[in-house]
Amino acid sequence: MASAVEVEQKYELITRRLQEVLGGDLIKSILAEGRTLKAYWGTAPTGRPHIGYFVPLTKIADFLRAGVEVKILLADVHAFLDNLKAPLDLVAHRTKYYEFVLRTVFETLGIPTSKLIFVQGSDYQLTREYNLDNYRLCASVTEHDAKKAGAEVVKQVDSPLLSGLLYPGLQALDEQYLGVDFQFGGVDQRKIFTFAELHLPRLGYAKRAHLMNPMVPGLAGGKMSSSDPNSKIDFLDPPDVVRKKIKGAFCAEGDIVENGLLAFTKAVLIPISELRLERARREAHPNDTELSESDATGSQKPFADDDAPEGTVFTLKRNPKFGSSSHYKTYQELEDDFAAKKIFPADLKSSVEAAILSLLEPIRKTFLANEEWQRIEKLAYPDPSASEPKKKKKEKVYHPPPPGKGKNTNTNTKTSIETAAPTEATVGTAVLAEAPAKSEQAKEQDAPTS
Amino acid sequence: MASAVEVEQKYELITRRLQEVLGGDLIKSILAEGRTLKAYWGTAPTGRPHIGYFVPLTKIADFLRAGVEVKILLADVHAFLDNLKAPLDLVAHRTKYYEFVLRTVFETLGIPTSKLIFVQGSDYQLTREYNLDNYRLCASVTEHDAKKAGAEVVKQVDSPLLSGLLYPGLQALDEQYLGVDFQFGGVDQRKIFTFAELHLPRLGYAKRAHLMNPMVPGLAGGKMSSSDPNSKIDFLDPPDVVRKKIKGAFCAEGDIVENGLLAFTKAVLIPISELRLERARREAHPNDTELSESDATGSQKPFADDDAPEGTVFTLKRNPKFGSSSHYKTYQELEDDFAAKKIFPADLKSSVEAAILSLLEPIRKTFLANEEWQRIEKLAYPDPSASEPKKKKKEKVYHPPPPGKGKNTNTNTKTSIETAAPTEATVGTAVLAEAPAKSEQAKEQDAPTS
Repeated sequence: MASAVEVEQKYELITRRLQEVLGGDLIKSILAEGRTLKAYWGTAPTGRPHIGYFVPLTKIADFLRAGVEVKILLADVHAFLDNLKAPLDLVAHRTKYYEFVLRTVFETLGIPTSKLIFVQGSDYQLTREYNLDNYRLCASVTEHDAKKAGAEVVKQVDSPLLSGLLYPGLQALDEQYLGVDFQFGGVDQRKIFTFAELHLPRLGYAKRAHLMNPMVPGLAGGKMSSSDPNSKIDFLDPPDVVRKKIKGAFCAEGDIVENGLLAFTKAVLIPISELRLERARREAHPNDTELSESDATGSQKPFADDDAPEGTVFTLKRNPKFGSSSHYKTYQELEDDFAAKKIFPADLKSSVEAAILSLLEPIRKTFLANEEWQRIEKLAYPDPSASEPKKKKKEKVYHPPPPGKGKNTNTNTKTSIETAAPTEATVGTAVLAEAPAKSEQAKEQDAPTS
Repeated sequence: MASAVEVEQKYELITRRLQEVLGGDLIKSILAEGRTLKAYWGTAPTGRPHIGYFVPLTKIADFLRAGVEVKILLADVHAFLDNLKAPLDLVAHRTKYYEFVLRTVFETLGIPTSKLIFVQGSDYQLTREYNLDNYRLCASVTEHDAKKAGAEVVKQVDSPLLSGLLYPGLQALDEQYLGVDFQFGGVDQRKIFTFAELHLPRLGYAKRAHLMNPMVPGLAGGKMSSSDPNSKIDFLDPPDVVRKKIKGAFCAEGDIVENGLLAFTKAVLIPISELRLERARREAHPNDTELSESDATGSQKPFADDDAPEGTVFTLKRNPKFGSSSHYKTYQELEDDFAAKKIFPADLKSSVEAAILSLLEPIRKTFLANEEWQRIEKLAYPDPSASEPKKKKKEKVYHPPPPGKGKNTNTNTKTSIETAAPTEATVGTAVLAEAPAKSEQAKEQDAPTS
């Protein structure tokens, strides 16, 4: 049994900054029992993960600090289905690559990973039991309900594929087969989550809690075109490439809505600053004993100047010609100043750029020191610049396009990032966004138009 | 290599009386190679099989006589999904029961069964490979195409279940996993079959041939209500029950369309008469060496009087008050006489009744001599008259009705025969009809209305 204060502290750590919690009472009761909470977050190992993944990972860091056992589902079966052009062995390499990246992010942040477990979908999603349950689900779920559940995350097209109807059910079954107490995802997963809450009990399984992150617009700005896939910042991009991409990000003076830089600052940079401040003040959560600066492979300084007042979570450095730096203790103050045009976009860009470079530097360093990761990277993403035309040729030989594809260029075939040629405005949200959960990519990316 | 004459003879035996053949060239080329043709026909072991199963079995007898290796797929996974109320062990008993019945039918007819193989769906439909292929299929088949494929065999309702969309794909995969050259079914399966022809090659598998039986109206007459499920004749019904059911069959003077008795005569009785005549004349196919009267456990006389002219395939016995018997060498002559009102319905009924009784007598005798079959029968269909209300109670405890069920009493949940309370006119076709293939039941039967 945990004390009421402990329960409240952990619950606060687990749920802070979330947009919505379904089943908070369940989480509290497990915390009160003193039992280890178990959670899962899923992502399909398709294209190279971009730094939008920092958004869920920053939240998962809270779970880990609160002692939650976190399973990261690398949904390899989904990745294979998302892009039938990618053979299974390529997906296997990508799965390993994702694990390298995600694990390294936690290590550079100094987050304890003893309760972090990577699971591959193929470990259980092709078993007899899982598939019988999938069939059982399909025999009690209507097309209408499956379509409704996927409405936010599966692209709504004239000729949707059957797979889009299966994903909500599979994601529900994952909760049971991963044996978790709650699932975490972006709030765009809400209908998938409520679907799971309705249908798992109908199969005789427990209803799980669902924790939802707010959606975060991309670096290029939500409504802007991001037809240039290079605008996504890769975890391994060298500093000059990062600088170039941030330079190209959309950031209009006074505009706080279509502002991927502010969004990333709010969702990633300031939480990480707070983590570091908490740690420095030894104010970390009582159960946060594993956290010590020496464990982290990256910097443990908040994104603030050395001479900033205590409690500063973000320092905006100005071009000296136009004034001195501003120090912020909350995101809101920063946003207010930007809205009031007290901050030039160029200064926001350079401040965010410095923070991103400091986040990426130890990750890149780890990569360059790890031969196995380098080997896997080559296998997972061979010759990325030339891969698209080659693959298309192959596809025509072995996998004729599915019916309706000719009529509907925007199918919900989920394509890997490097082969996607996004054409819709909303695609821009992928650049720095909430990292896609496994059924989320369809919305973010368009299938190649030919 | 087989001679051209042999090929033609076997091809004729394999395809005679069918309504449609897709891929006949494939069948001929395999026959010409001298390779053993392999075929499959599927049925879901749900309710007690009724004598409508004689229709496909009579055709399958031709395949076996032509040396085709025939796999009968007892689709237990489908049966389980069709009726989630029936637990898996009950389905297992029903699967055994079906095998007893179907095997016995061939034995009583004297059909060689050395190339008859019973396969259970669960033998392969829950494996890793099959399920990955199912997912692959779902990632390339649109909802629209799946719905179109199932239009004839899955009841079209406002809120169809996902399972109805999966069935066409699963049935296509069965061809690959059973390793057959052709699939056999009723012509109502046509869209499912053409779906398989289109999609298997897209997965890299061979396109199979498809042989289709005509649809046969039920005993009660196609448009008549058959709200009394007792009107279906069970293989094990004792003679007095059979007589009662035939007495209740719809048979209007001169009406050759809504006439289940004529339909059964055409599709079952006359082909069996012809089989027996061929055998008696030693005109059987050259490869028909296994066929000898001594192998058959049932009568080997055609359904003709002893004093009928040679070649008679059906004798209509009349009430002596109204005339003497009529002997027919073809079905057409019988139908013409009935259309011309030269035959009273009562005389047709009594003639067909005698034939059905003679078909069922050796089956019932085999059952009564086989303790294992009797034991399985009790387990497979326990207390049939009282089972429905009990099961419904159970269902409420463990399986709340799926969404949309309240609004749509005619869901495409496939229900077992004994719990079905058919309400639609077309349901009448089930009584003596083409035995349902595994995805066919939905159309023939209505889900319980409460």
